[in-house]
Amino acid sequence: MTLRILDGKQIADEIKAEVAREVKELIHQGTRPPQLTAVLVGENPASRVYVKNKGHTAEELGIESATIHLPETTPTELLLEEVRRLNRDDEVDGILVQLPLPRIINADQILDEIDVKKDVDGIHPANLGRLVLGQPCLEPCTPAGIIQILERSGIRIAGVRACVLGRSRIVGKPVAAMLLNRHATVTICHSKTPELASVTREADILIAAIGRPGFVTGDMIGPGATVIDVGINEISSQTDLARFFDGEELERRSVVVARKGRTLVGDVEWKSAIAVAGLITPVPGGVGLLTIAMLMKNVLEARKAKGR
Amino acid sequence: MTLRILDGKQIADEIKAEVAREVKELIHQGTRPPQLTAVLVGENPASRVYVKNKGHTAEELGIESATIHLPETTPTELLLEEVRRLNRDDEVDGILVQLPLPRIINADQILDEIDVKKDVDGIHPANLGRLVLGQPCLEPCTPAGIIQILERSGIRIAGVRACVLGRSRIVGKPVAAMLLNRHATVTICHSKTPELASVTREADILIAAIGRPGFVTGDMIGPGATVIDVGINEISSQTDLARFFDGEELERRSVVVARKGRTLVGDVEWKSAIAVAGLITPVPGGVGLLTIAMLMKNVLEARKAKGR
Repeated sequence: MTLRILDGKQIADEIKAEVAREVKELIHQGTRPPQLTAVLVGENPASRVYVKNKGHTAEELGIESATIHLPETTPTELLLEEVRRLNRDDEVDGILVQLPLPRIINADQILDEIDVKKDVDGIHPANLGRLVLGQPCLEPCTPAGIIQILERSGIRIAGVRACVLGRSRIVGKPVAAMLLNRHATVTICHSKTPELASVTREADILIAAIGRPGFVTGDMIGPGATVIDVGINEISSQTDLARFFDGEELERRSVVVARKGRTLVGDVEWKSAIAVAGLITPVPGGVGLLTIAMLMKNVLEARKAKGR
Repeated sequence: MTLRILDGKQIADEIKAEVAREVKELIHQGTRPPQLTAVLVGENPASRVYVKNKGHTAEELGIESATIHLPETTPTELLLEEVRRLNRDDEVDGILVQLPLPRIINADQILDEIDVKKDVDGIHPANLGRLVLGQPCLEPCTPAGIIQILERSGIRIAGVRACVLGRSRIVGKPVAAMLLNRHATVTICHSKTPELASVTREADILIAAIGRPGFVTGDMIGPGATVIDVGINEISSQTDLARFFDGEELERRSVVVARKGRTLVGDVEWKSAIAVAGLITPVPGGVGLLTIAMLMKNVLEARKAKGR
């Protein structure tokens, strides 16, 4: 059995090129380009980087972007007002409220307020409900990216066993619904699942979205299974490095750690997983790149749905 | 191992008594009683019976009820107008559009139009999305009834394996979400599931909602499992009777068929299932009775949420 290591960049680039082409056509037809407005609250450094990257990618593809940066102390009511203003603004096609929000803000209330048609993160309950029902909607970006990876890699979904590890709002629950609607038999596992390894080993497609570095080890993977690693975690110690990697990859990662002080790993323990899996997505370079590409696709879809 | 046959009537009566008590209190406090308006389109005889029964039960519990009966040929736009009128009517707390609707009507569009706060069938995409997220919402009646059966029978949900057979909008998908949010490990199976029996046999709780009489046979059930039979099907031939039942139950059912021309059975083959299961819900007398009780509870909840 040969192992395939998925190239997330290639698929993300394909999708971005498709989006850029469609945006160009829209503009050529004389309509206004799509517009994405990000709302960033507070000074979380990772959030600032994410928002900046999203803005850059948007502009690369001809999508206009703006960022509204509010102070950490913004009360829920004021943020609600801001969202309502963006809902009313006809020049705004997509609204992205960067998560996590500061603790003093009622996040559910904010997300509920976003116009369903501008909810480019696909995170509003009404979009999730439609997703579950298989109705047209804005799909959450990471789950949509996972489906793109599977479909564009020729992995069969219909009729196979899929196991989703994790039941978060933005990954586990929606990706389970999307796999089910594509006729997989889906099991959703989590921290309270008994005899976890015996459950995950039965999966033809295993989605690891539990947010714990190296949680999925080789003995939890069925021979030849497709393993989609959604986790993004940092490790830095030599012990962790040696647990995750060996050979050339260990050398390469050690250099990264020496230079940057850390390296990114997923929820899957690379070394033991690649000995069993049939296809695996790397971290970095896997699912993460798709998430941003699918966000751009959603902004385009939101623009097109307006139809003028 | 002893077999428990669940008494759906007892649990339904408990819930209805609780609802009646709360309705009485509301009225005692000087507020208007809850009001349920059913919309019936066309002459489907089963639908007429269902709507009539719902109205009767409502009145038994002190809930006001009304039925709007529209002709089979009602166009979607007119039904939409009717739903909008009921949405605006402050005296209406719950709107129930009886399904199935005639084929010429776009059912999704109608269900999308119902005010989420009056959607006492819990069938609107936004209610389903909230259900999946574990947020407060009006819960779909049959899945909510199944949870009541499990909880009031002392069946543990957290940490067990549950298998949902069927993925419909009104049963399979929502009950899977509700079991997951109560910390079961949930597998959703359907017509495209390979090696089905080996999957269903692993379940501690098996929900049969596939709509095929006797589809679940004893060999598909794990020893001592809890089997919840959501199916409502009719059989009438002696061959079918002998396949489902034996002994006294066969005699009893034969009398029913002789008298009424048919008898109701579920998706579970009774005879082989009771030899294996630990707890089972009968048909009739099981889940069906809970559905209507939970509808009444939803009308009460919708009334209380209005708060005046």
